[in-house]
Amino acid sequence: MVETVRIALDAMGGDHGPEVVVGGAELALSRHPESEFRFFGNAALIAPLLDAKPKLKAVSKLVHTDVAVRMEDKPSQALRYGRWKSSMWLSIDSVKKGDADIAVSAGNTGALMAMSKFNLKTLPGIERPAIAALWPTLRGESIVLDVGASIGADADHLVDLALMGAATARILFDLDRPTVGLLNIGVEEAKGLEQVREAARILRDENFGELDYQGFVEGDDIGRGKVDVVVTEGFTGNIALKTAEGTARQIGQYLKGAMSRSLSARIGYFFARSAFRQLRQHMDPRHANGGVFLGLNGIVIKSHGGADAEGFAAAIELGHGVVRDELLARIRAALSRHAKPRSHPMSPAVGGAAS
Amino acid sequence: MVETVRIALDAMGGDHGPEVVVGGAELALSRHPESEFRFFGNAALIAPLLDAKPKLKAVSKLVHTDVAVRMEDKPSQALRYGRWKSSMWLSIDSVKKGDADIAVSAGNTGALMAMSKFNLKTLPGIERPAIAALWPTLRGESIVLDVGASIGADADHLVDLALMGAATARILFDLDRPTVGLLNIGVEEAKGLEQVREAARILRDENFGELDYQGFVEGDDIGRGKVDVVVTEGFTGNIALKTAEGTARQIGQYLKGAMSRSLSARIGYFFARSAFRQLRQHMDPRHANGGVFLGLNGIVIKSHGGADAEGFAAAIELGHGVVRDELLARIRAALSRHAKPRSHPMSPAVGGAAS
Repeated sequence: MVETVRIALDAMGGDHGPEVVVGGAELALSRHPESEFRFFGNAALIAPLLDAKPKLKAVSKLVHTDVAVRMEDKPSQALRYGRWKSSMWLSIDSVKKGDADIAVSAGNTGALMAMSKFNLKTLPGIERPAIAALWPTLRGESIVLDVGASIGADADHLVDLALMGAATARILFDLDRPTVGLLNIGVEEAKGLEQVREAARILRDENFGELDYQGFVEGDDIGRGKVDVVVTEGFTGNIALKTAEGTARQIGQYLKGAMSRSLSARIGYFFARSAFRQLRQHMDPRHANGGVFLGLNGIVIKSHGGADAEGFAAAIELGHGVVRDELLARIRAALSRHAKPRSHPMSPAVGGAAS
Repeated sequence: MVETVRIALDAMGGDHGPEVVVGGAELALSRHPESEFRFFGNAALIAPLLDAKPKLKAVSKLVHTDVAVRMEDKPSQALRYGRWKSSMWLSIDSVKKGDADIAVSAGNTGALMAMSKFNLKTLPGIERPAIAALWPTLRGESIVLDVGASIGADADHLVDLALMGAATARILFDLDRPTVGLLNIGVEEAKGLEQVREAARILRDENFGELDYQGFVEGDDIGRGKVDVVVTEGFTGNIALKTAEGTARQIGQYLKGAMSRSLSARIGYFFARSAFRQLRQHMDPRHANGGVFLGLNGIVIKSHGGADAEGFAAAIELGHGVVRDELLARIRAALSRHAKPRSHPMSPAVGGAAS
């Protein structure tokens, strides 16, 4: 028997608000009948949407709150007015209390991370959480982290990212020992940042059982799918992710332009339309929507702010994947087994100071 | 009358060596009859190639050397055995001596930068040179720098990059006051690295006449062509560039796969083949091949190591563009006019310490 997966939803997050969140939940439910939902947000807006979807309503609870975090606010501002009472906070709190298995929000990333950290706290030995993204590749999908939770990383943090990313890959991709690479410029040992080289040394020397360290990878190796897990700090990871999204959009525009410019091209498009549909699916960022927050005492998933119902459903379904296989327990185990050997002999606290 | 452009070529650089370099020179000459070439490398390999192309031979000199820099060597190694005598060194030295206007090499990037710096020296006030890339966008092309010359940058170096990038954009794109953005994660003032925020403050406050500072840009704004010049430090810039190249290649593969999967798709491809040709041109990294080394007393252009003759020709032609309009003089003027206001009151040396 499939166990119920209980999902807390920040119904007010994202550019489109409740309509997309409720629509996404309906799509996810149709593919995962074992879902249960808790919607947090303005009942006057959400209730009519649920009334129109009786099947969804039957497995949903609605918790009203007037307070919603704005997309443009700084994390500190959002915490000030949104703590304890915003739809974002309440959805995270639902995970904290054990009422939900995961929380999903398409809201303000910085605020979501700040609230998640404040409420759920980080795992033992983890200073800073990370956001892991699913990246479509020529070989399938890879996990890239951190894509923007924090800026900069020392060697220990990069190793933590590798362990957390590998634990996620084992579950999502059903792999025994995922391959892991450190993002760098140039593959020679001597190149790149000091902390990246030091992380490489640790990963090589420790030879962790749950991951297969493959060395440095470059930007173009990500799309190639050279490794299952690509590790980098949040500034570079975020820019890589957005650059790839921008490039895909750009090529989509070229293609659209090229296919409408002449009669013959339009005829060609007609014949090849199912091939184009396939291509669009491949290029569609909606199918890889959802960043997983790692390193916290609970699983929070960030959907793109601009996601439509299909995209939001993908973020929810990503949550199903990680809950079913108890991502959190696996990460805890991986980190605790390896916290000691990596701690500096001179520093009493595991994890050390932030860089 | 068009003035002659004298181009020094490292004939031994790149994955394919003299064949591609000579072939690229022939293509460039056919489009720019005002070219003159100096080939540096193994005469036994190069002479027969030139003999087969009498038109090219007529405007070329060949300087023999046995020493070639290997693609996999570290800069320090390459300097040790390649200084004074390698084909790479001699082509740079040709610029130094005033025998050539530019040098082009498809060789080892690190070695090329080390030798260029060692031989040509940096411009006054510039600690570290940069590599500027031409990036195809939805609006045409943008300049992105630094894409890998050095790792990390303090605020002053980022401002130098902005000024050098703007000088290049003015020439290559024929713009009066190019728009400039600082690459960051999130567009809010408060976000991102401290040095990026500080550079933003300087660019805003100084309000330089030769550039129009537009604020922060994100990874997906590059392909959109939001600004003419995108400024970032070399680690992130290199990863962004390679990630975009990887994504373009990946989508090209998807497209190829989709278009051959069914009979109807193949028929469609036949009708739309000229549209596909157009698309390939847009996506073809060869048409934007060539990184310009900026900040040195001389212009050196780096071609992709894997470039074919068409790609290498693009790198040479990029050189034509920058020489015709005296890039170097413009950069010198821009930097000297603004060296004073940017220097820290506390530090006597302009440019300050490297970060």
